[in-house]
Amino acid sequence: MKLGDLGEDQLLDQLLPRLPLKKKAVVVVPGHDCAVVETHDRRKLLVLKTDCIIEGVHFSRGTNAFDVGWKAMMRPLSDFAATSAVPQFALITLMAPEQTELAWVKELYRGLRRAATRFEVSIVGGETSSTPGPIAISTSVVGFVEKDRWLSRRGGKVGDDLFVTGWLGGALKQKHLQFIPRIAESRWLTKNFSIHAMMDLSDGLGTDLPRLARASKVGFKIDTEKLPLTRGAKINNAISEGEDYELLFAISPRDRSRLERAWAKEFPNLSLTRIGSLNRKSAIGNRKLSSGYIHFQQSG
Amino acid sequence: MKLGDLGEDQLLDQLLPRLPLKKKAVVVVPGHDCAVVETHDRRKLLVLKTDCIIEGVHFSRGTNAFDVGWKAMMRPLSDFAATSAVPQFALITLMAPEQTELAWVKELYRGLRRAATRFEVSIVGGETSSTPGPIAISTSVVGFVEKDRWLSRRGGKVGDDLFVTGWLGGALKQKHLQFIPRIAESRWLTKNFSIHAMMDLSDGLGTDLPRLARASKVGFKIDTEKLPLTRGAKINNAISEGEDYELLFAISPRDRSRLERAWAKEFPNLSLTRIGSLNRKSAIGNRKLSSGYIHFQQSG
Repeated sequence: MKLGDLGEDQLLDQLLPRLPLKKKAVVVVPGHDCAVVETHDRRKLLVLKTDCIIEGVHFSRGTNAFDVGWKAMMRPLSDFAATSAVPQFALITLMAPEQTELAWVKELYRGLRRAATRFEVSIVGGETSSTPGPIAISTSVVGFVEKDRWLSRRGGKVGDDLFVTGWLGGALKQKHLQFIPRIAESRWLTKNFSIHAMMDLSDGLGTDLPRLARASKVGFKIDTEKLPLTRGAKINNAISEGEDYELLFAISPRDRSRLERAWAKEFPNLSLTRIGSLNRKSAIGNRKLSSGYIHFQQSG
Repeated sequence: MKLGDLGEDQLLDQLLPRLPLKKKAVVVVPGHDCAVVETHDRRKLLVLKTDCIIEGVHFSRGTNAFDVGWKAMMRPLSDFAATSAVPQFALITLMAPEQTELAWVKELYRGLRRAATRFEVSIVGGETSSTPGPIAISTSVVGFVEKDRWLSRRGGKVGDDLFVTGWLGGALKQKHLQFIPRIAESRWLTKNFSIHAMMDLSDGLGTDLPRLARASKVGFKIDTEKLPLTRGAKINNAISEGEDYELLFAISPRDRSRLERAWAKEFPNLSLTRIGSLNRKSAIGNRKLSSGYIHFQQSG
């Protein structure tokens, strides 16, 4: 069997359960947006995330280096947003052929630095390695989250409202290189509300929402007519394209009106849309979203 | 200018001084074995390291996957040894072509897990990405070190003895895939002695010792006849081959006899050899080691 015959979820399922985990120390197992672990600190959890982008896979050869650096930093930071965690330190690994222009690499680091500075993250190290292959940038980020504020895909309850931030679809045109992780929004949410489950939308709602539902052991129902569409995007784009890097979260309907009012006041320029709700595991609810979308088999 | 025209040290010198560093939070700047940063913990420092190995660069195509996994985990752990830090958590990024055999990947992870377990490190996450290029494995490790025990390449003093653990040279035959990072030895050293500066020998004594001397702002003199040679290795191999993953450290000569006696008792199967000493920056001392070795220009 070849690696390409398995999706990443399936592959990690096969590899990760056998990894050595000190059960006491690890709060969230792999497969979630970030790893969240206990340390000697009583109030805070350590949060870890690594992410890589590869030329020809995550960005095309002609992409300007600043944007590549921005994306390489912001992708793992978006996972911190999903966890409602505060990123603090980053390590950068650059794999690049020897004939890579130094000017390109400097511009890449300018993008990395600009993105890190945006969220007060310190780039504290890393390494460079020559490769016979395409350029790859791997970014590892470490930070923390208070024990009473950290979120994962687990914890969504039957009856919860489902909200998404921003607009979905059409991200591959430009937004995927210039997005702003929703860290400020996520931290505000957990400061002011009881959020039950959260994730960031990187692979598209049609892939990601089933993951949240599966982790929370519930079903879901969404109203595709309500999806907040990027100008020019269609429902199909919003569901299956990915790279939106918006937040998807579950919250009790009791908080709905307070949330909507407070959000509009705090973030007047960013939409917040109720797109549906969590329900008992119902094939009908699931099928409604998924029919025709290639990733649905991953929702199990 | 192309990337290949610069050594990694020179490249990082160009890229890293401009990185955003919160001065208060960062104890050691990039370029050392690990990044060492302050957190809200008063007694302990957070230690971070990332390292990647690439097929065709760090291992050849035919290498068995278990050994590749072992090496991918042990290389950053050797940097923890250099810092006298305790590794705790690891993230693994696997970049591999879609046609990679799943069996190969499983064996790779078996090597990663075995190596992690050896030092009670929990693999808490990571990701896989398909690539059109060669297989690459990036490992990020996070842990801690007590504030009064952490070591770097800085701190060596004029007159200090220079010691190395184990045997040098010939590592490329087999040892580079099966070495044991000297974490236990390093932790024992800082528990029982005042070590002034330390690093692990990954690029060869001829490259690494000048780095320690430069960071400590001193010169050095070694007695090449005293170098502890792996069976079959010559002095030249010990100086220029690299991948020994042994410790090099500087300690006051006042501690010499106590160190040698206690070491022999604690680690009877691992040699500890005094190879020379640190001195005032003397061109003669430097030239003695370096003449004829390609990496010497990096010692500045």
